[in-house]
Amino acid sequence: MHPLKQLMNPSSIAIFGASNNPMKMGTIQLANILETGYEGEVYPIHRSEETVMGVPAYKSISEVGKPVDLAQLVLPTEVVPEILEECGRAGIRRAIIISGGFKEVPGGEGVARERHLEEVAGRYGIRFLGPNCVGVMNSLCSLNTTTIINPPMGGSIAFASQSGAYTAMINPYLRSQGVKMCQTLSVGNEADIDLADCLDYLRDEEAVRAVGLYIETVRRPREFIAAARETVKKKPVVAIYVGGTEAGSRSSLSHTGAITGPDELYDGLFRQAGVIRAEDLDGMIDLLWILSMQPLPEGRRMAVITNSGGPGSSLAYHLEKAGMEVPAFSPRLRAKLDEATGPLTFTGNPIDLTFETNIFIFKQLLEMVFESGEVDGAFIYGIFGAPDFMVNLKKRLPHLQAMEDNWDEGYRAFLAELAAVPQEHGKPVVVMSFLGTGSGSIRSLIEHHVPVYPSAVRSALAMRSLLDYRAFRDGSGS
Amino acid sequence: MHPLKQLMNPSSIAIFGASNNPMKMGTIQLANILETGYEGEVYPIHRSEETVMGVPAYKSISEVGKPVDLAQLVLPTEVVPEILEECGRAGIRRAIIISGGFKEVPGGEGVARERHLEEVAGRYGIRFLGPNCVGVMNSLCSLNTTTIINPPMGGSIAFASQSGAYTAMINPYLRSQGVKMCQTLSVGNEADIDLADCLDYLRDEEAVRAVGLYIETVRRPREFIAAARETVKKKPVVAIYVGGTEAGSRSSLSHTGAITGPDELYDGLFRQAGVIRAEDLDGMIDLLWILSMQPLPEGRRMAVITNSGGPGSSLAYHLEKAGMEVPAFSPRLRAKLDEATGPLTFTGNPIDLTFETNIFIFKQLLEMVFESGEVDGAFIYGIFGAPDFMVNLKKRLPHLQAMEDNWDEGYRAFLAELAAVPQEHGKPVVVMSFLGTGSGSIRSLIEHHVPVYPSAVRSALAMRSLLDYRAFRDGSGS
Repeated sequence: MHPLKQLMNPSSIAIFGASNNPMKMGTIQLANILETGYEGEVYPIHRSEETVMGVPAYKSISEVGKPVDLAQLVLPTEVVPEILEECGRAGIRRAIIISGGFKEVPGGEGVARERHLEEVAGRYGIRFLGPNCVGVMNSLCSLNTTTIINPPMGGSIAFASQSGAYTAMINPYLRSQGVKMCQTLSVGNEADIDLADCLDYLRDEEAVRAVGLYIETVRRPREFIAAARETVKKKPVVAIYVGGTEAGSRSSLSHTGAITGPDELYDGLFRQAGVIRAEDLDGMIDLLWILSMQPLPEGRRMAVITNSGGPGSSLAYHLEKAGMEVPAFSPRLRAKLDEATGPLTFTGNPIDLTFETNIFIFKQLLEMVFESGEVDGAFIYGIFGAPDFMVNLKKRLPHLQAMEDNWDEGYRAFLAELAAVPQEHGKPVVVMSFLGTGSGSIRSLIEHHVPVYPSAVRSALAMRSLLDYRAFRDGSGS
Repeated sequence: MHPLKQLMNPSSIAIFGASNNPMKMGTIQLANILETGYEGEVYPIHRSEETVMGVPAYKSISEVGKPVDLAQLVLPTEVVPEILEECGRAGIRRAIIISGGFKEVPGGEGVARERHLEEVAGRYGIRFLGPNCVGVMNSLCSLNTTTIINPPMGGSIAFASQSGAYTAMINPYLRSQGVKMCQTLSVGNEADIDLADCLDYLRDEEAVRAVGLYIETVRRPREFIAAARETVKKKPVVAIYVGGTEAGSRSSLSHTGAITGPDELYDGLFRQAGVIRAEDLDGMIDLLWILSMQPLPEGRRMAVITNSGGPGSSLAYHLEKAGMEVPAFSPRLRAKLDEATGPLTFTGNPIDLTFETNIFIFKQLLEMVFESGEVDGAFIYGIFGAPDFMVNLKKRLPHLQAMEDNWDEGYRAFLAELAAVPQEHGKPVVVMSFLGTGSGSIRSLIEHHVPVYPSAVRSALAMRSLLDYRAFRDGSGS
């Protein structure tokens, strides 16, 4: 069993550094463990407090008197090795070391302290994350040991990161996009467990369908490439690398004690490893989202179905820029599409429905273009929030209230059917919309595994990543 | 006076095509005119209805018997020229023609219809937007003639677009980003008023500080370049161009009857015109936002102040990628910064506060780096929503309630002071944060004219556009 399996699914946790002082990071982390729904045993270890936030506390780990799966240490740097030693003596074999002040601190002292930590852990066979990290999240056991409340748990994306902030602070951004994460791992200085280990672990996690990595340095390139190549056979891996610039490198050194390499070197490393490189965190999330939900396209031919010209032109433009095709449809297919649509519809590719108000036609057209065999995937830009139009009308024409509500319900059912088309045909679909997760229609599409992006370029790059992954998986490069 | 001045600020509007049928576009647009706060006269023109949504209707424009500033036509294609003629006879000199079915329709008939329209307008001296457009929005007179409810009105961004959807459908996206628009113009097929005219008009609008353009074709390149160059002397112009690909060009033709040119040609045209080119609508909004709010930097040297390593490294990386510098600070400045911060702070550039919980220090550090003269602008990544941390703590430690609330108020005042620093020092500041507009702190920064972006690359490209605009304005190219 991979050591991270127990660390990410502990039956019991001892936490060091939590108290009743709300200004302490350990206190915040314990509150999050207790309030996120974790059902295992939780043991606060505190020298003087009888209870910590209502939970019985123990003066030391040896007083617990039961086996403990995981220790999380949020303590002043100096005492960390000694407490880790106590944990080892008490039989604990997994730890998360939140405390900073190790390799990332300028001068040699921090490096020596980190070596001491490694020596203690090695002696007891303790496998650990950190030091200088923010904890983990695992939706499978409702575990959140980070400082951040209320992560959007679920879905099938996992993320391992050399930045703690990026695993925890991004929660509001994820929520605003409608994206969930099922596991996050903050690896900090990687004194023991590193990103290659995370890949080895996540490869066999059934619930995980796409893996993201934030990288300032790869400490064991050979093992990283091997781990990534094995992982990519089963699921896509997307990475961000920052560190290839002078200031980036200066920053990384002070951040996780990482020695960075030039950008091009990492481009090569990712290509060799079959890893898709994203530019930044927001882009990485875009790609992981579609990679975790949609089927892979057989080829590069894309259909665009829109009821608005600007988004249609923009999608066509950005699809071609990103190396895909938006082929003109055959006369045969155009004749079929013409029959189904009104006189103001342009049925070439893009299909532009212009002022068409019958939104139910989207599904019919999507099925037609998929059945034709002329495309490998499709993009839809639609007014998927039509009920919004009614708000001012309702104020002026009050009898509309009832109609709208019924219609809304039928509309939700329609969206579920529309969202099922990609899986039925084995061809990916991306929706472009400005409505965002404030709209029930958009939330409904997302719940049914259709990704929604608010721009043509983000939509195109998302689809492109499916092609890139397919090429890596099948061994033909990007 | 520019003809758009009256069109965008009408004292009275006649609307053709609004009825009591909620499924008609004209009805929706009238509801929006009535419900957005417009205080001018509104005259629905309808052959049979006595009132339209509670407003007295007139059988024809000649029956109104008072001067009317603007006519909006949302009628079947065939009757548009005839009704425009009636408007001309009634003395109306400004119109918005929403109806489609003109130049954008394949085959020659639409082109002939559009020529007919031009001929009628010419005869009466009517200047008009459209046909095939969605209307306008002007926050200065609370005017919204589009199909879309509740636009986020305000701020100092104007947007003129060959896509109607992009001026109206984007409202929920704008709102999610905290961005407002003060004027939008959908130009449709540009049979009369085109983007060059919009630039001429917007140049002299005091309330407008940045102009966006969505372009599928430039119909009068010489006039466009001249209008843009004059505009750029006073305010920045950002454009998106899509049409440079085969499918994009096919789509544009069917959208607004536009003949598109290759991408490189437009790159040259924009450079000549001093126009900043954005990749897509979301990127354009990012740039317009900062351009409308922040002072221009004197040079490329940037400071990064963060309390998290990942965002710091990412900002440093993307700033250098985007052609800026993140210079190491002088020993003198580092000594000053060291004095102000704790032992775990790295005071190079980026300044990484790590686990610093005293967020008030951000302002102090920002002033120090600005006063040093060592940088021309700054980026801040901070935990600007600290009260969020308290949610789970509060459940466990109920006595915290009062403290949090007081602290929150002081915090808002602090944010206002922080947001004043860029104007005081004449140096731009960008905040990077994942919290989004769901956070009161972020809303507070935005209200005080500091733009907030959820990624390093978006933050860097935003700052870069200030440098690009400065170069264009000062005549030194980009």
